[in-house]
Amino acid sequence: MRVGVLGATGYAGQELVRLLRRHEEVEELVLSSSSVAGQEYEEVYPHWCGQNIGFLHDEEVSDLDVLFCALPHGLTASRTRAFLERNMKVIDLGADFRLNSADVYEEWYKLKHPDVELLSKAVYGLPELYREKIVGQSLVANPGCYPTATLLALVPLLKAQLLQTEMLIIDAKSGVSGAGRGLSLGNHFSEVNENFKAYGVASHRHTPEIEQELSRAAGRPLTINFTPHLVPMTRGMLITIYAKVNEGVSEEDLRRCWLRHYETEQFVHLLPQGTWPQTKYASGSNHAFLQLTVDQRTGNAVIVSTIDNLMKGAAGQAVQNMNLIMGCPENQGLTGTALWP
Amino acid sequence: MRVGVLGATGYAGQELVRLLRRHEEVEELVLSSSSVAGQEYEEVYPHWCGQNIGFLHDEEVSDLDVLFCALPHGLTASRTRAFLERNMKVIDLGADFRLNSADVYEEWYKLKHPDVELLSKAVYGLPELYREKIVGQSLVANPGCYPTATLLALVPLLKAQLLQTEMLIIDAKSGVSGAGRGLSLGNHFSEVNENFKAYGVASHRHTPEIEQELSRAAGRPLTINFTPHLVPMTRGMLITIYAKVNEGVSEEDLRRCWLRHYETEQFVHLLPQGTWPQTKYASGSNHAFLQLTVDQRTGNAVIVSTIDNLMKGAAGQAVQNMNLIMGCPENQGLTGTALWP
Amino acid sequence: MRVGVLGATGYAGQELVRLLRRHEEVEELVLSSSSVAGQEYEEVYPHWCGQNIGFLHDEEVSDLDVLFCALPHGLTASRTRAFLERNMKVIDLGADFRLNSADVYEEWYKLKHPDVELLSKAVYGLPELYREKIVGQSLVANPGCYPTATLLALVPLLKAQLLQTEMLIIDAKSGVSGAGRGLSLGNHFSEVNENFKAYGVASHRHTPEIEQELSRAAGRPLTINFTPHLVPMTRGMLITIYAKVNEGVSEEDLRRCWLRHYETEQFVHLLPQGTWPQTKYASGSNHAFLQLTVDQRTGNAVIVSTIDNLMKGAAGQAVQNMNLIMGCPENQGLTGTALWP
Amino acid sequence: MRVGVLGATGYAGQELVRLLRRHEEVEELVLSSSSVAGQEYEEVYPHWCGQNIGFLHDEEVSDLDVLFCALPHGLTASRTRAFLERNMKVIDLGADFRLNSADVYEEWYKLKHPDVELLSKAVYGLPELYREKIVGQSLVANPGCYPTATLLALVPLLKAQLLQTEMLIIDAKSGVSGAGRGLSLGNHFSEVNENFKAYGVASHRHTPEIEQELSRAAGRPLTINFTPHLVPMTRGMLITIYAKVNEGVSEEDLRRCWLRHYETEQFVHLLPQGTWPQTKYASGSNHAFLQLTVDQRTGNAVIVSTIDNLMKGAAGQAVQNMNLIMGCPENQGLTGTALWP
Repeated sequence: MRVGVLGATGYAGQELVRLLRRHEEVEELVLSSSSVAGQEYEEVYPHWCGQNIGFLHDEEVSDLDVLFCALPHGLTASRTRAFLERNMKVIDLGADFRLNSADVYEEWYKLKHPDVELLSKAVYGLPELYREKIVGQSLVANPGCYPTATLLALVPLLKAQLLQTEMLIIDAKSGVSGAGRGLSLGNHFSEVNENFKAYGVASHRHTPEIEQELSRAAGRPLTINFTPHLVPMTRGMLITIYAKVNEGVSEEDLRRCWLRHYETEQFVHLLPQGTWPQTKYASGSNHAFLQLTVDQRTGNAVIVSTIDNLMKGAAGQAVQNMNLIMGCPENQGLTGTALWP
Repeated sequence: MRVGVLGATGYAGQELVRLLRRHEEVEELVLSSSSVAGQEYEEVYPHWCGQNIGFLHDEEVSDLDVLFCALPHGLTASRTRAFLERNMKVIDLGADFRLNSADVYEEWYKLKHPDVELLSKAVYGLPELYREKIVGQSLVANPGCYPTATLLALVPLLKAQLLQTEMLIIDAKSGVSGAGRGLSLGNHFSEVNENFKAYGVASHRHTPEIEQELSRAAGRPLTINFTPHLVPMTRGMLITIYAKVNEGVSEEDLRRCWLRHYETEQFVHLLPQGTWPQTKYASGSNHAFLQLTVDQRTGNAVIVSTIDNLMKGAAGQAVQNMNLIMGCPENQGLTGTALWP
Repeated sequence: MRVGVLGATGYAGQELVRLLRRHEEVEELVLSSSSVAGQEYEEVYPHWCGQNIGFLHDEEVSDLDVLFCALPHGLTASRTRAFLERNMKVIDLGADFRLNSADVYEEWYKLKHPDVELLSKAVYGLPELYREKIVGQSLVANPGCYPTATLLALVPLLKAQLLQTEMLIIDAKSGVSGAGRGLSLGNHFSEVNENFKAYGVASHRHTPEIEQELSRAAGRPLTINFTPHLVPMTRGMLITIYAKVNEGVSEEDLRRCWLRHYETEQFVHLLPQGTWPQTKYASGSNHAFLQLTVDQRTGNAVIVSTIDNLMKGAAGQAVQNMNLIMGCPENQGLTGTALWP
Repeated sequence: MRVGVLGATGYAGQELVRLLRRHEEVEELVLSSSSVAGQEYEEVYPHWCGQNIGFLHDEEVSDLDVLFCALPHGLTASRTRAFLERNMKVIDLGADFRLNSADVYEEWYKLKHPDVELLSKAVYGLPELYREKIVGQSLVANPGCYPTATLLALVPLLKAQLLQTEMLIIDAKSGVSGAGRGLSLGNHFSEVNENFKAYGVASHRHTPEIEQELSRAAGRPLTINFTPHLVPMTRGMLITIYAKVNEGVSEEDLRRCWLRHYETEQFVHLLPQGTWPQTKYASGSNHAFLQLTVDQRTGNAVIVSTIDNLMKGAAGQAVQNMNLIMGCPENQGLTGTALWP
């Protein structure tokens, strides 16, 4: 396969490069980035020195089997039609094709969607939930990191009508790499290190994406409380969810539901009872880890999910999607557990 | 004043030493620790070298005006009666006198309370909530770190009947110093660094302490969901609370309630609208910072509170209590903002 | 005293604010910064909220007893003459008055010195080495952080002719706050965290400053190898020095020399034999800690020194200098040990 | 191949598991650890849950093609003879076979060597220096982490007689994982985080190992100054070396010497001039990165080398050695660049 990456100098883009270079079916890898035109890839990332990484201008990218777009929102949608017409499969790691509704997109991203018609052609690329729909598609919207960790935990439980839908509290914590390589005081080492904060309270753009998919699973529209926090670490994401269980539903019922959904999955793991997820369990890997309990004193379920935000939350899942649409084994190039410690 | 610290080698104990050495009214400071008998204080903490810190066996501690007990639970309660009889004021940084009920203590701490009668003599030492009761007391139960951060945020709002009591979700995040100086794999650098996890889910011992005080504020018994998490940083604590507001209550009502309670307080600050607390704002200081919003989409309040777990969450608040019971200015030895960055 | 800080929004400037607000002799504190004109100080640093920090434009600063300049190099020297003429004492935390030679300044800072004549009027403000010269001065060049840590260790030993001068290897390690608040990829959290690197190898601007002062101590010109490294932590600095001892000089001779120099000093401590400095011993304090050994196998001395780069390496030492020139007790506003842990 | 790991629960052991599970030629992997007998591997490391990792008692390990010993020093040497007699190839990640001299071993490790005769049968497993000797061997002493990083930088330069041997200053910095999983206050998160220190000054056990190999390269006995430091990060190691160049030797000569040695190597990289190694360039990979300059002012060479201490410094190099002795491609199971960021 001939594979390309637009936006190869961002963190998700570089992670794609790391994965695709190891992928046995990728014969040629073409990288591009508008921000560093004229530089060699190893000038941007010296740890690639001596690895002969080609690095092109965007306009030189052509004739690919698969194109990954790791660009800021808005930049991909305006060019996707042209890519598809040239028979490329497009996997968008950005937000342009995740929301079904152009209105919701405009409301949250403050941007008129550049190609509304394509929205209905895109499939939401969360393989453990939509595997059948992804196979054979040409346009995949790779989910956001927070949505991935949240949906893996909640979708099976909501589909099975085990949880109430009127109280869904999603308290999320992410490492700093999720904010990308762009400079800001909020990512300045001395201001982030030894510090912990909430951000985007009641206003984060992953909110409508999570709500769209949870509503679909529950079969009725629902809203969530979503609060992301920034953890002084580079990689990793952990989501703590609070929900009311439906009457008569036990902790064991919830666990059994997860087991049914995930027992044959390679990347989603229910930890042994009493062992709670840690972000490091997933670090550098495409794995997700789940755990839950029902607090006997309040009757609420407490549900915890963890992934590596750049892997299952971005580049790893994107390669998983590529494998599905191109007919490769789903875990090709993605085997391996976390880097520990 | 002649002041003593039992358990001076733990982190809270050492922080007390740092504060009390700067306190103008402390003429003599007596330290003790059972774990390192025979060592000099500067052998335990070399950064105190050349500061002439006396360091005694427990049994040599006597004739003090104020005694701080920074010992594991159970060790203080059995000796407090003797201390009080020798006319010492006792400030307990442990859990022995925080819970009003000996039964609840036994249930959560798996220990029969060593001196039940004294429970009713102790005052819960959260000055911003119980200042009048603390003045003149002989036995102060210094609150836990999680309870301090939670109660400062919630008590005024519950007292004013602005929040419903049936959904109180308290998602808490703490730096590692809260776990103390005792060795465990859970505090081993390579396992904590670049890692984030939940712990003590639905079972942390601060739960009944928070519920006791929130129930008192609300005027009726209530239960909470309390989930602590460990942040890969040394100091600091941030609490994110989700609650339903009572009908007709606006975000502005909630803020006004806080302002009324805290406008004359030196250590509790409501941040400007839109600025959310960061743990570093409080680091090394006795200050607490608050913020909230009402999520228009769910109608729930999202409330965030931060303190330094070793200061307002332990040693700083203990000194504040000492100032109150000994008639010193409440902020003596506690002035100063955070160490930034 | 009426005291001003130019450049109050940088890290050294903010640290000055923290110290001067606690200083009993500072009646009025005037802050200024060109970069955030029109903002309130608490907008820049929210942890100061509610503390009524005045914040002016540079041009409004006048009639001060002492003025601290925490500006990039070049900006202070052109204005200092005017400040001195208005009878202000000037303490420059930048590099403009540290080097005696305008040529050396131009060579390393790539800038013609704006006021060469003033160079001879400035005193190098390292109190433990030049206390007598500082008292009564009007213009103090506050030393760089690397020079402070290095000179405290080496100057007494070179003055006493205990070390050879032809091999002085200075391997330095600093926390990230030394690089200031300006944004760069080199200070971006995800690129610094879990990372360690050398920088400015054989080219760092503190090299000529260290050489100037070591040459003066040794009584002959000497050159050094100076290699700074960046440690993934915010505060702190540790210097490892390798030097040949003169014939017949023992480890004990070196220690005795330090003891003689520092036994009455409040801020410089020789640790007990076998205890090596850690940056955290000094964190948040104005203290320096020293240790050395003579490696029996090579005959070389290995010397280690640590300070907090923003305190003894910048703002703390600047306040110490203010105390000296204004006749305050030298440790006023600077008491207190490290924040631990 | 049937491969075993003794000491599979330590960090180097676990890293071996991660690598060997990905290695195409490893058909069966047998793990053992005395410390956690009776537990499942996923109880020790939950991120391996669901991966069916067998886990045995030491005595059950038999009939292997290759046995990796990741045990504390002293424990391997006493059992190696028995392993060899059963036709296993033994790769020791500990120190038991690194030193040629039993006397030097006893002096530094305070232990009589358990099987002196075997010392001469072991090969020092640094492939880039001793590749030919390793092929076909049965007993490989896998080098220490500090020696690996140091020798890769210095051996070619000393062999080519470009450096003087009387001043070799090796200032080393390591992440905390090098200290292993055993609990100690020195690895306690709150004491290591935001802290930097020297340790083992003039006494670290890797000193004689480095000297042995450097002396061999230089063709004459030499001694070094070796000072390790602990960096507040988990993985990574960076070595800064100071050496006098021989007369007439230029920076370009030194670089050319490295290039000659390493141009065909897959794991050792000379960075472009002006780009200095960062530990993160190597993190999670088997790569090493080098850079140097000659300081024009002192004439000394400053040489920097970085590796991942658990990969090229331990498990990665051990697998590289296995590939050599078993006739696999040298990089099998070791492809892939650093995890970034």
